[in-house]
Amino acid sequence: MNPESFPCQLISWNESYELGRRLAYEIKHSGFRPDLIVAIGRGGYVPARVVSDFLLFSLLASIKIEHWDTAACMRPHATVRFPLAVDVSGKKVLIIDDVTDTGETLRTAVDYIRELGAAEIRTGVLQHKTVSPFVPDYYGEVVAEWKWIIYPWAAHEDLVGLAERVLSVEAQSAREIGERLKERYGLVLEESTLSEVVEELVATGRAQVQEEMYRRAE
Amino acid sequence: MNPESFPCQLISWNESYELGRRLAYEIKHSGFRPDLIVAIGRGGYVPARVVSDFLLFSLLASIKIEHWDTAACMRPHATVRFPLAVDVSGKKVLIIDDVTDTGETLRTAVDYIRELGAAEIRTGVLQHKTVSPFVPDYYGEVVAEWKWIIYPWAAHEDLVGLAERVLSVEAQSAREIGERLKERYGLVLEESTLSEVVEELVATGRAQVQEEMYRRAE
Repeated sequence: MNPESFPCQLISWNESYELGRRLAYEIKHSGFRPDLIVAIGRGGYVPARVVSDFLLFSLLASIKIEHWDTAACMRPHATVRFPLAVDVSGKKVLIIDDVTDTGETLRTAVDYIRELGAAEIRTGVLQHKTVSPFVPDYYGEVVAEWKWIIYPWAAHEDLVGLAERVLSVEAQSAREIGERLKERYGLVLEESTLSEVVEELVATGRAQVQEEMYRRAE
Repeated sequence: MNPESFPCQLISWNESYELGRRLAYEIKHSGFRPDLIVAIGRGGYVPARVVSDFLLFSLLASIKIEHWDTAACMRPHATVRFPLAVDVSGKKVLIIDDVTDTGETLRTAVDYIRELGAAEIRTGVLQHKTVSPFVPDYYGEVVAEWKWIIYPWAAHEDLVGLAERVLSVEAQSAREIGERLKERYGLVLEESTLSEVVEELVATGRAQVQEEMYRRAE
């Protein structure tokens, strides 16, 4: 994968919800009834909440696993940053995340929850990328062609990260930044989203602005 | 409030996101920079994830507080069901929930996090109902007229709960159940949503079905 150009896809809230509905359907119809749902932070918060709703099941907790730093920048290992605050010994646990990419996050979560003594562990994601060596028990959809998927709850951070990559030391307009995002990542942003992204680059000191032209901060 | 009839409002994903964006804007522009965001489970999971995105801040944890049982059924006290797994002593903590209704959930969360030794605690919600004696530090919007707000991540459970209330011992069609939901709660549901809701009533043994007519299970 060329780190300077790769396909990205923005997923809408309604599309994410539909994937959550399908994921919950798969879980329901498998007959598996968890004693606890664990959301993997931060990507699994929204999917786990939606699954919890469709399963009419309120026992939802979270852990935080660190792995991806910013959009498409991988660190070698996943680690549990915030532990689980609930006793799972002898329990059936359903772990939910957004996507399997390398699957490293889910594998780390499963090992961790197993060490805590859970009796049975199953995993579910909205989208399972077939490149992932780890295959979750449940998923809303299979993604065969690798792409970076941008979920709506991560869109601001992901887009700001990608926009920072296309910034050059030469002044460019917001529209030009938008064109580079399209060329390099296949992203077509609404004007209001693009404005919000470049304003954030300026607010966080990553871009300098002068007369509505932006350049990489020095 | 008549427990058999009260105004409800279904909020869409995009509306919820817009409220989250406004909430994050208020926090950002107040100058408050948290050391940790705590989502109150389960209502605060989605709002907290969205706020975390707009603040470009990744330290997100959760607690679970139990208070509301099902749609608009209140239990007298809120209690911490799943504790916080992160050390907050001396830290600035931002607690996020969906809505202030009585404010009892947020008050319980603040007392709990304070006892854990946090240096500073601020609270934020998507929507602040003015009937709530507890006023959060930040909110996306004020709601002056009391209504039961149904967020998309809780819609299935809330709608199933409300539909169960309108079920009678006499057989009725899905359409008739939909009409009662409109009369009593002001809810206008899409046909697919209504089907999903009545199917869930049957699947969970709350309704009996015969020739596409539904009645309260005996």
